[in-house]
Amino acid sequence: MYINSIGYYLPELIVQNSYFRKVNGLTAEWIFSRTGITERRKADPEENTNTMAIEAVKQALPENPYSIQDVDLIIGSTYSPYDTVITVAHAVQHKFNISGVKVVSVSAACSSFINSVEIVEGYFASNKAESALIIASAHNTAYGNDSDERSGHLWGDGAAAMFISKKRLSENDLKILDVTTEGLGNIGNPHESVFLHPSNGGIKMPNGRDVFINANKFMAKGLEDILMKNSMSINDVNYVIPHQANARIIENVRIQLKIGKEKMIVNIDKLGNTGSASTPIALAQIKKKIKHKDVVGITVFGGGYSSGAMLIEK
Amino acid sequence: MYINSIGYYLPELIVQNSYFRKVNGLTAEWIFSRTGITERRKADPEENTNTMAIEAVKQALPENPYSIQDVDLIIGSTYSPYDTVITVAHAVQHKFNISGVKVVSVSAACSSFINSVEIVEGYFASNKAESALIIASAHNTAYGNDSDERSGHLWGDGAAAMFISKKRLSENDLKILDVTTEGLGNIGNPHESVFLHPSNGGIKMPNGRDVFINANKFMAKGLEDILMKNSMSINDVNYVIPHQANARIIENVRIQLKIGKEKMIVNIDKLGNTGSASTPIALAQIKKKIKHKDVVGITVFGGGYSSGAMLIEK
Repeated sequence: MYINSIGYYLPELIVQNSYFRKVNGLTAEWIFSRTGITERRKADPEENTNTMAIEAVKQALPENPYSIQDVDLIIGSTYSPYDTVITVAHAVQHKFNISGVKVVSVSAACSSFINSVEIVEGYFASNKAESALIIASAHNTAYGNDSDERSGHLWGDGAAAMFISKKRLSENDLKILDVTTEGLGNIGNPHESVFLHPSNGGIKMPNGRDVFINANKFMAKGLEDILMKNSMSINDVNYVIPHQANARIIENVRIQLKIGKEKMIVNIDKLGNTGSASTPIALAQIKKKIKHKDVVGITVFGGGYSSGAMLIEK
Repeated sequence: MYINSIGYYLPELIVQNSYFRKVNGLTAEWIFSRTGITERRKADPEENTNTMAIEAVKQALPENPYSIQDVDLIIGSTYSPYDTVITVAHAVQHKFNISGVKVVSVSAACSSFINSVEIVEGYFASNKAESALIIASAHNTAYGNDSDERSGHLWGDGAAAMFISKKRLSENDLKILDVTTEGLGNIGNPHESVFLHPSNGGIKMPNGRDVFINANKFMAKGLEDILMKNSMSINDVNYVIPHQANARIIENVRIQLKIGKEKMIVNIDKLGNTGSASTPIALAQIKKKIKHKDVVGITVFGGGYSSGAMLIEK
């Protein structure tokens, strides 16, 4: 599998930490010291998961080596849906008038994007698709509550779009060496840790500590496991893109992996937690830095719980 | 691919047509004449998409030839989520304490179940799974509005669970001859026909006529296409299970397919529209009638839009 192009969209409105002082009682300094976040984006009232996904596709299109009409699979990834019937993927199909294509949206919380890549791998294996478009879109502020002192300040909005083909189509393609996911609903008690009830209260994180502990453990383990499976070591990796839930988790994962800060990609400082869009946004942000033969490792953890990892080579 | 076992769950509470007279102004006779529905089930306040999915799994388990701990893929199918983080699939993983398994939930509206089967096919093709559990769960009454005279009376709640293996495991297995899906977000204007905004108004169907026309067309076409692809004709099919959105659509599809009423499976009269659970519930309801060499055709249409079809042989 090859990544042909990738783009991302961020809403214009920037919400600084200082906004939360009067809303959930937390100071800018406290938020930064506990999360590493200084600001995050917030979709405007006319925007939603579907509109942001469409904007992200527009950003990916100019560099894509084939027409969007040629994709035969569209997968939307979101846990903050604007519409569960006209899903992210269906809205993109409609906007770009793509016919004869398989279309579905998925959720495994902040892991959803990696699950989508693995589903694409399956469609390629069953010879039902040759090229796919994945859109990860997070409208966290639609379901978060700013006045929640446990998690109101964590969330950001944004979307990313990635075109993937079965065969190499251009020398600029990034090769997906491997991808894997694991559901972790069986460990601990995710029902008391973080959840999103769309029609009844939105996102809540009553036990962020349990999420924190498991994210530390499984994000490091997930990358180590996929490297071992591919007879590689962390020394072969030029950049690690972790899910951006908390800068302290990212730092703990970095220490476990024993890599320098220059290899660890961080965008949570400016974007907050952008859900399953966080890692493809980060990949899009650094794509020009990635040189021939560079290896990028992506590792994610999500509520529910769930984990996933992916290795990419230029 | 082989269906190893299938079960379903329906909430106890039955809502008769007569309930709607004072709620959305429609008489029992009018509802029946326009939709074929006489009653539907409604989840109680303690139930939701996740709890109904778990109950459906319990119904499938006694006849399944292997332990639920042996599945290596769980896919939840719903457009009426109780939780988009602890999804239907994650809740089932948690309840039955299943480790080392891939877990994701999907939506393509009322087509979601068929999309899930196609995703399983992909995991089997990529050799990442050998056995899978699909749960389709619909909690329409959580998002519907009883007082809506256009669609309040259409919706029912229910769930179905299906175990699928790559290889035949028992002589009771049903062979999946073929499965296919197609996104139809590009046709017409689904944005004005039927949608579900989870945090803002729930299910609405402002243009049911457009849904009706396209469901008639694509449900007949979907089954004809998959039969032709498999060098079969409608005469080879013993039972057709259409998505249960409206008895008039089912009758129109039957007439287009030129088959007798005894071949057309209907449960909408007692269950209303149970979303993507409607066809697996119907399959579970008739499974004892299916004889050796019998062929069952499933054909669905969903909001968004979307379609799918599947051929099964005993």
